[in-house]
Amino acid sequence: MRRIADSTVRRLSLYLSALEAFESTGTSTVSSAILATRGGTTSAQVRKDLSFFGSFGKRGLGYSVAELATRLRDILGLKREYRLAFVGAGKMAGALVNYRGFDQRGFHIQSVYDSDPQVIGKSWNGVTVHNVKQLVSELKSRPVDIAVIVTPADAAQEVADRLVQAGVKAILNFAPARITAPADVTVRSVNLTLELEALSYALQHR
Amino acid sequence: MRRIADSTVRRLSLYLSALEAFESTGTSTVSSAILATRGGTTSAQVRKDLSFFGSFGKRGLGYSVAELATRLRDILGLKREYRLAFVGAGKMAGALVNYRGFDQRGFHIQSVYDSDPQVIGKSWNGVTVHNVKQLVSELKSRPVDIAVIVTPADAAQEVADRLVQAGVKAILNFAPARITAPADVTVRSVNLTLELEALSYALQHR
Repeated sequence: MRRIADSTVRRLSLYLSALEAFESTGTSTVSSAILATRGGTTSAQVRKDLSFFGSFGKRGLGYSVAELATRLRDILGLKREYRLAFVGAGKMAGALVNYRGFDQRGFHIQSVYDSDPQVIGKSWNGVTVHNVKQLVSELKSRPVDIAVIVTPADAAQEVADRLVQAGVKAILNFAPARITAPADVTVRSVNLTLELEALSYALQHR
Repeated sequence: MRRIADSTVRRLSLYLSALEAFESTGTSTVSSAILATRGGTTSAQVRKDLSFFGSFGKRGLGYSVAELATRLRDILGLKREYRLAFVGAGKMAGALVNYRGFDQRGFHIQSVYDSDPQVIGKSWNGVTVHNVKQLVSELKSRPVDIAVIVTPADAAQEVADRLVQAGVKAILNFAPARITAPADVTVRSVNLTLELEALSYALQHR
C-alpha cells in the first residue's frame, strides 16, 4: 500500500471514532457529509480519502457503518494487540494508563520503567516498575511494540536513544521536549506546553 | 501584527523552550543552527521566523539568549497570567494540574467543574469542585481566559457550547472527540486516540 499522509491518517481516525459512535447507537448507514463534519473536512475529501482504500458506499445510500468501521480498523492496524512500555511512572503516566482508549484499542502495558529508587520494585497498575538502566537489555529479550515516554524534559532524548537501541519502532512522547530518532522509528509527541502557548498566543493577538 | 500560521507559533514555542534551557545553564548566545535543531527545522527557517518579528541576532555572533527569550515570551503572550477553568475533575485532570508547565507559564486554575455528585463540593487541588450546571452563570460573573475540557467524549461538545455561551475564547480539549466552536474561539485538541492510531498505522505499514 502506498504511504499516506499523516493528515489523512488523522482523518481516518476521526471517521472511525464517528463510525464507532454510530455503531453503539445502532445506526447502519452514514453519509459522507456526516463523516465530513466529524472529520473537520468536506464530503469530497471524505470520498477521496476512502476511495484511496477501495470502493465503499453506494451513491444515495451512504456508507455501511459496520463495514466501513471494520475496514478502517484494518487500515489503521487496530485488528491486533500492541505491547507497550511506559518510561516514567509518575502522575501523568498514571492518568494515561487509566485512559479508556488504551486498553479498548488493544494497547496493553507490558513493562514500566523509572529511575526513582522510591518507585522501582513497587507495583504500578499491576505491573512491577523496573530500573530504567535495565531497559535496553530487558526490551531486547522481551520486546514491546510501542514505548511511551513520560519523563521530565531533560531525560527524554536519552530515554529515546535507549528505546531505539532496544529496537523499539514507535514512540509516543509526552515529555515537554522534542526528541529525534532514526527515520525507521515513528515518533508522535504530545506537548502540552506547545498547546498552552498556542492558546496564549491566540488570546494575545485576538 | 499580522496573523502568523499555527506551524510558526509551534516553532516559536520550541525555540523558546530551547532558549530557556540555555538560560538555565548560563549560555548567553545561540546560533540559528542550534535553534533549528531544537525546532525541527532549518537555519534559514529560523531566521525567517524571527525576522518576522523584528531584527534579532548579529551575523556571526548568533542570538542573545536572554533577549530572544524575552521577545518570544512577549510574542507568545506569556508575560501575563491566565485564569483557567477545568471541566472534569478525574485522573487525567489531576495529572494535568500537576504538570509543571501550567503554573510555571502563569496558567492558574481558578475553577473546577464536574457533573459527578460524589465529586461536587469536594476540594480538588485546593479548589472546590462546582456543579457543571452552574458553569455558564459562574463564568459569566467570574470569567476565565482558558477552559480545559477533560470530560468523556460524549459530553465534550455540550461542555464546549456552554463555555462559548459563558464567553470563553480559548479551549484546550482533552476529550477524545472533535469539538466545534465559533471562529472567534480558539480550540486546541490533544487526542490520545489519534496519536495511538497514528502509531498503529505506522507499525502496520512499515
